[in-house]
Amino acid sequence: MRDITIFSGNAHPDLAREISAYLGLQLSPTHIQHFSNDCLYVQMNENCRESDVYLVQPLVTPVQENLMELLFMLDAARGASAARLTAVIPYYAYARSDKKDAPRISIAGRLVADLLQTAGANRVITVALHAPQVHGFFSVPTDHLNALNVLAQHFRQYHLTNGIVVSPDLGNAKSATYFARLLNLPVAAGSKKRLSDDKVVIDSIVGDVSNRDVIIIDDEIANGGTIMEILQHVRSRGVGRIFVACTHGLFTGKAIERLKSQPDIEEIVTTNTVPIPAEKRLPNMKVLSMAPLIAETIRRNHNGESVSSLFDNTI
Amino acid sequence: MRDITIFSGNAHPDLAREISAYLGLQLSPTHIQHFSNDCLYVQMNENCRESDVYLVQPLVTPVQENLMELLFMLDAARGASAARLTAVIPYYAYARSDKKDAPRISIAGRLVADLLQTAGANRVITVALHAPQVHGFFSVPTDHLNALNVLAQHFRQYHLTNGIVVSPDLGNAKSATYFARLLNLPVAAGSKKRLSDDKVVIDSIVGDVSNRDVIIIDDEIANGGTIMEILQHVRSRGVGRIFVACTHGLFTGKAIERLKSQPDIEEIVTTNTVPIPAEKRLPNMKVLSMAPLIAETIRRNHNGESVSSLFDNTI
Amino acid sequence: MRDITIFSGNAHPDLAREISAYLGLQLSPTHIQHFSNDCLYVQMNENCRESDVYLVQPLVTPVQENLMELLFMLDAARGASAARLTAVIPYYAYARSDKKDAPRISIAGRLVADLLQTAGANRVITVALHAPQVHGFFSVPTDHLNALNVLAQHFRQYHLTNGIVVSPDLGNAKSATYFARLLNLPVAAGSKKRLSDDKVVIDSIVGDVSNRDVIIIDDEIANGGTIMEILQHVRSRGVGRIFVACTHGLFTGKAIERLKSQPDIEEIVTTNTVPIPAEKRLPNMKVLSMAPLIAETIRRNHNGESVSSLFDNTI
Amino acid sequence: MRDITIFSGNAHPDLAREISAYLGLQLSPTHIQHFSNDCLYVQMNENCRESDVYLVQPLVTPVQENLMELLFMLDAARGASAARLTAVIPYYAYARSDKKDAPRISIAGRLVADLLQTAGANRVITVALHAPQVHGFFSVPTDHLNALNVLAQHFRQYHLTNGIVVSPDLGNAKSATYFARLLNLPVAAGSKKRLSDDKVVIDSIVGDVSNRDVIIIDDEIANGGTIMEILQHVRSRGVGRIFVACTHGLFTGKAIERLKSQPDIEEIVTTNTVPIPAEKRLPNMKVLSMAPLIAETIRRNHNGESVSSLFDNTI
Amino acid sequence: MRDITIFSGNAHPDLAREISAYLGLQLSPTHIQHFSNDCLYVQMNENCRESDVYLVQPLVTPVQENLMELLFMLDAARGASAARLTAVIPYYAYARSDKKDAPRISIAGRLVADLLQTAGANRVITVALHAPQVHGFFSVPTDHLNALNVLAQHFRQYHLTNGIVVSPDLGNAKSATYFARLLNLPVAAGSKKRLSDDKVVIDSIVGDVSNRDVIIIDDEIANGGTIMEILQHVRSRGVGRIFVACTHGLFTGKAIERLKSQPDIEEIVTTNTVPIPAEKRLPNMKVLSMAPLIAETIRRNHNGESVSSLFDNTI
Amino acid sequence: MRDITIFSGNAHPDLAREISAYLGLQLSPTHIQHFSNDCLYVQMNENCRESDVYLVQPLVTPVQENLMELLFMLDAARGASAARLTAVIPYYAYARSDKKDAPRISIAGRLVADLLQTAGANRVITVALHAPQVHGFFSVPTDHLNALNVLAQHFRQYHLTNGIVVSPDLGNAKSATYFARLLNLPVAAGSKKRLSDDKVVIDSIVGDVSNRDVIIIDDEIANGGTIMEILQHVRSRGVGRIFVACTHGLFTGKAIERLKSQPDIEEIVTTNTVPIPAEKRLPNMKVLSMAPLIAETIRRNHNGESVSSLFDNTI
Repeated sequence: MRDITIFSGNAHPDLAREISAYLGLQLSPTHIQHFSNDCLYVQMNENCRESDVYLVQPLVTPVQENLMELLFMLDAARGASAARLTAVIPYYAYARSDKKDAPRISIAGRLVADLLQTAGANRVITVALHAPQVHGFFSVPTDHLNALNVLAQHFRQYHLTNGIVVSPDLGNAKSATYFARLLNLPVAAGSKKRLSDDKVVIDSIVGDVSNRDVIIIDDEIANGGTIMEILQHVRSRGVGRIFVACTHGLFTGKAIERLKSQPDIEEIVTTNTVPIPAEKRLPNMKVLSMAPLIAETIRRNHNGESVSSLFDNTI
Repeated sequence: MRDITIFSGNAHPDLAREISAYLGLQLSPTHIQHFSNDCLYVQMNENCRESDVYLVQPLVTPVQENLMELLFMLDAARGASAARLTAVIPYYAYARSDKKDAPRISIAGRLVADLLQTAGANRVITVALHAPQVHGFFSVPTDHLNALNVLAQHFRQYHLTNGIVVSPDLGNAKSATYFARLLNLPVAAGSKKRLSDDKVVIDSIVGDVSNRDVIIIDDEIANGGTIMEILQHVRSRGVGRIFVACTHGLFTGKAIERLKSQPDIEEIVTTNTVPIPAEKRLPNMKVLSMAPLIAETIRRNHNGESVSSLFDNTI
Repeated sequence: MRDITIFSGNAHPDLAREISAYLGLQLSPTHIQHFSNDCLYVQMNENCRESDVYLVQPLVTPVQENLMELLFMLDAARGASAARLTAVIPYYAYARSDKKDAPRISIAGRLVADLLQTAGANRVITVALHAPQVHGFFSVPTDHLNALNVLAQHFRQYHLTNGIVVSPDLGNAKSATYFARLLNLPVAAGSKKRLSDDKVVIDSIVGDVSNRDVIIIDDEIANGGTIMEILQHVRSRGVGRIFVACTHGLFTGKAIERLKSQPDIEEIVTTNTVPIPAEKRLPNMKVLSMAPLIAETIRRNHNGESVSSLFDNTI
Repeated sequence: MRDITIFSGNAHPDLAREISAYLGLQLSPTHIQHFSNDCLYVQMNENCRESDVYLVQPLVTPVQENLMELLFMLDAARGASAARLTAVIPYYAYARSDKKDAPRISIAGRLVADLLQTAGANRVITVALHAPQVHGFFSVPTDHLNALNVLAQHFRQYHLTNGIVVSPDLGNAKSATYFARLLNLPVAAGSKKRLSDDKVVIDSIVGDVSNRDVIIIDDEIANGGTIMEILQHVRSRGVGRIFVACTHGLFTGKAIERLKSQPDIEEIVTTNTVPIPAEKRLPNMKVLSMAPLIAETIRRNHNGESVSSLFDNTI
Repeated sequence: MRDITIFSGNAHPDLAREISAYLGLQLSPTHIQHFSNDCLYVQMNENCRESDVYLVQPLVTPVQENLMELLFMLDAARGASAARLTAVIPYYAYARSDKKDAPRISIAGRLVADLLQTAGANRVITVALHAPQVHGFFSVPTDHLNALNVLAQHFRQYHLTNGIVVSPDLGNAKSATYFARLLNLPVAAGSKKRLSDDKVVIDSIVGDVSNRDVIIIDDEIANGGTIMEILQHVRSRGVGRIFVACTHGLFTGKAIERLKSQPDIEEIVTTNTVPIPAEKRLPNMKVLSMAPLIAETIRRNHNGESVSSLFDNTI
Repeated sequence: MRDITIFSGNAHPDLAREISAYLGLQLSPTHIQHFSNDCLYVQMNENCRESDVYLVQPLVTPVQENLMELLFMLDAARGASAARLTAVIPYYAYARSDKKDAPRISIAGRLVADLLQTAGANRVITVALHAPQVHGFFSVPTDHLNALNVLAQHFRQYHLTNGIVVSPDLGNAKSATYFARLLNLPVAAGSKKRLSDDKVVIDSIVGDVSNRDVIIIDDEIANGGTIMEILQHVRSRGVGRIFVACTHGLFTGKAIERLKSQPDIEEIVTTNTVPIPAEKRLPNMKVLSMAPLIAETIRRNHNGESVSSLFDNTI
């Protein structure tokens, strides 16, 4: 296995370029187009014979297009005799389809993991899967990173000694607790009930937030409904400064509109696991880069150094 | 294996309903939606435990959405304990990606066949694959139907005793010859060169078309460029009535506009392997139904009767 | 596939016999012994050629012996030409090894699912997996039952109109909520932190339990530490009658001793997914049988009837 | 993966030796014999642990013996811990069984590709598959070479400025066109109909050959029937010098007799993808070696250099 | 699975016909030919959709041709939608390649078993594998019959009360013992050493044969060398009548010549697991048919009745 | 593949440490424990990313625990991105379950080989499989060592010129013959019949042992019954010195008691493929180490040197 070659699909070339730069490499070019019958045509425009190949493609909108692009890139690179193929999927959208909570549905998170293997993936690198069990859906070795050290590093500058970390959801409390520990802060959590795909209510909050600066943290912000709910609760208890943080800043539907309408949010901190276009970048939004962490994971992976010390998977 | 259950995705429910009707069955309902993060959610809304399940879904625009729908339907029906799963794909769009004619590309027709198997397909029924070799891409038993008997039956009413069948492409001449034999007519073929995905030229025509009624036949009409080319050639040789026929009437890009502008085309005959919306249905267009042939194939398949006698695969 | 044949390993023959009886069948005999070098020798002592075979074996202590027994039974029945092989695993112990929360460990719940498939399992029937995501570890169709209807049916006789259902763990709150709904009761949940395999603390309880009759419910009771913790909390708030309920009554280590020492527990209700020997059967313990539900699942599965209506997997 | 080791079966040891010589290597010895019950016994007589192993074996008569030899060599080398196994199959005879043009036949080209993988092939190197789609039958990475540059290089010495390239078959016209472009010549093609395995007729020729020097080119010459047919056609139009060229010179049945009887063929040019015994080497036959191209492919493959630049697969 | 369909390759159509007749069926026709490039072409000439298909083909000379025929028949029948495919291989020649007793050889008995599965075999029926461990090479359910009851039934007519069963080889002593028990006779065994594929010596005989009628029994007679050796030994000890018996009568090389030259052999008894042409049928040779046993195995297999009671596999 | 990393389960850490020492390495630490529900928890406590990993674990009592430990270690190391995984199983206990000599049993030796592959084993190193055919049960490349050179080296010091090697079992005579040749001695063999798992009788001995020093050699000594039987026979013929040797010294049941009671056994020689605790080490027992041979196999395997020259597998 000679050297590292990095390709990107259309999902997030900026991140791929940034990762390449951290490794002192050029992103290798890919040619992707649609035939007149809407079929995808994918060509890897650089020799990758016997290379250690990384394909960067988060599963963001349009998800099906981006997923099929990734599958064709894997197959093309395999046919082109790549020595090893790693799918770098910073946002694995189908992680949310992780259980059979209705009759006759697909556990899509598992199926997509199988499709990746069929197309040729030998390894996966991903970030903050919605549930830690989803790791077990992959048959191939998978490095499951998280963004909490990156987020914590950012918040250290504010010296929030009177702060508290708030998880809107008890299901997510474990990560929030880990994040709080990094900042030496206490933690509180909302008791959330999902009514439908885009409707949630929060009954109550476990932990005392009153008179504290709060950092509301979640793994992803989609349409922002959960954040709106938890904001109401913390406000009603009289809190200090309010920060909102998440790993995956999807900001779908009315999310940006909603967040814009909350003047008391001091800062919205997220990462670039998904691309955030200019029109969604609110003045008080800070997008931290995951490129250094992903690049370092690639480097260690290539060199056979331990990756587990890079992050804490006891979360 | 108890009985036949038929489901459809969003690609072509009309065809699925028609096939069901021919078998005296109701199309079983499917629920398909997108989550706010654009992930697909697919639920089969009828018990199919121990059933002989058929999922009807041609790979038409939007191809990637329809393909992923099909994969999730397969996985859902497998998880729901279907006894056998047959993917009915009247138009297998990726059949055109059948060779590696550039470095580092995917032979996508093969990969998609593998993905179908990973998702749970035990069998495939398809129509008029672009090249007969594509049949060999499928690992599972595949019934490869063709529409030529259906088309020939339609043309018999015109008693074209002075007719000739014209294939625009020598690569397709074998099917045209078979079709001509069904109508007891001679055959001619153009020598076609493809310059790009949507640009072709025809050098010459093998066979004498002058003063004859011509039926131009192709496996699919995409943007109509090939038909325009061959029309010029036949017209220049002085022909009688002109008919245009094809199996897969995609009519992409300027196809409809182009066909509309040719007043001397007496009739455009195609089939419903792909859905043809009202706005594409020209007054001189005739859409023949493949539902009876597909339904009969399903019936025989279920009952263990010979399917090969239904059509001729010596084409 | 002719008829149903049921075999049992050494893990829980009583349950297998009871399931057989519900189906009007005799349990088919199995011969299991150890060679002098400690290797297992497994023989199925009844013809099962072309049968629909069910192998009943929960993964209880000694887990490794019982798991290997199950794998050898599967392989033996496959070699004996069973038409279909269903592993009935009422307690899937390795479901707890469902994530990679330390470096260089196995996600054993996934590996064991793969081993079952290698040994020949075509289907799995299981009850109350520790996390619903574990369902996705199985490649074969899996019926994931739960015991909540069975437990609720039992509690209806007490007419606990002033009752409340208490989940010791927020992670389990979803099942508790479903259970409470079946009994038309409110729900409360403890906020639990696991310090080690056998040490947990509960910080607080979300929901008001004071002056109410409480039903503490958990998916499994191992050494009883969690129950002791939550009991302290509910007692300190002044409650009425106290019931303890769970699906999997493992009662390992000091569990029985601990439960015996709590005179205010009115009843301990569990099921027979794991065998409960006479010496663990406290006077106030009630063991409900899962045999009817499992038998009915087998019957419907064999006859191609819907299983989803038997239980609610929206939990 | 340490170094390159090359073995040969009985099909074409001369070619294997020549390839080895180009790489500065000795061909490693193989021992092959038949037991008295006609079973094959294959032993690789040189250590190949952790080697990059190449097994050279075109599928020539006796095809079944040579194929089984190759499968046993693959299995033996895998068991002997080869790091990577490449089957070098300069003539893949079963490529002609590439479609299902009759009921209940095997698409043998696909099955044989699957058998190679079962026996341990990690990669394939082959030359001029009968149809480019056959590439898609292989699940393992495959380098599909062609001989057209080798053939063209030979013809350049004749400076045939008034020449024309003639393909007997329209199906093969694409390669002929590519070959003509290399020589800066125009192209013509016959319209061929296959009546049976050894009987073809050519209706007509597209393109003007009269008064030109012709190079008739085909992918393979089996019994020579097609060449005889096209010769009649070109002669009847009055041509200059006549050359015959092909990649795979099988010369089965009456081929040599037929070719010998045509005094106006100036030269028959073929390659050594199949062994051509002395008695088939006509005085006007020129056998070009594919060893340099195959050896260079092996070298680049081993070193991770691009192979696509070696030949043009846009044919 | 509707009914039984039986096909035969070229190896032993007589046996296939006889088996069919026992089941009251017609042997279904197969068309097998060679293309001019020596490739096999196999077509199943009868509908077998949803049938329970049996392909009868012992691996006799020419072994490689017959094996490839079988593989193509399997693939063709799979593609033709057979419900289940059973390879009936009365003589599995590659069973003798069952260990790695030299470096870098293939354990061909295992590889061929894997190839059968790749080609589509769902089950195997075979007779008297050279070593019982070879059964474990098959991944698919395998019925391993033996001919000893058939042979014993024949010898019962001779009422050899003063007889002894002699195995030339200690490795085969277990079957000989079983056979002797069926006839209520004692057993003796030679201590054999194989010098090469066709040269063996027997050191001594364990057991007292003097003055007894002997039945020399072996699993197969190839070139007859072993029989010649053991004959010398028994003769030198002064015995009565001499019978020679075996399951697989290959009679290769000088076998017939050798056997013919031994006037004191009263009868040579074998079975028709391999075809025995007229010219090998010595006057004192008796060929017993395995067709009834194989047919009954097929019938029970199809009907889900126990097969183990048909023969004793404790041998 | 960077360097060698060696881990051990609980079966035989001493051997693993010794092997590591021969290679100049430290045994890497493993953490293995049982959860309260008896599930195993396995963690590899050293980075092995891109390493050539060897897991040493003979299948000794408790076999099922040790086997599952090995499977979890394989899975954990695979998930931790080991470059290659070799299971070093000096005693493969399930080799004795190598045939189907009763209806409806598992050929467990094959199943366990498949389970090892499912869990991630890329290679196997093992010693003296009970039957050489068992080698063919493994799908992955397997180095099958034997201990005969090690044992012979030990006996050379005694200069037993008047000795004879005695195999209690004709089935094992081939190894005994090889061992005898190493010592330049003649060989004799008992004719053994197994009555049950722990009861055998020996009828007679082939070869003349009288007045000679005997070395009784077997592949394994379990309860010692076979050795007691053969001792009786040799004693009755008046022999000189008596030595007992075996590869696998299991010494189960009454073995030690029995051996202790035979004062005329001069020495019992075995190896450390299985751990032999202090209480089983009789004063006249000599345990030879297999560590040097296994270590050298690992070294050559890692470096791509021939392993076959290390031992003779023509046995």
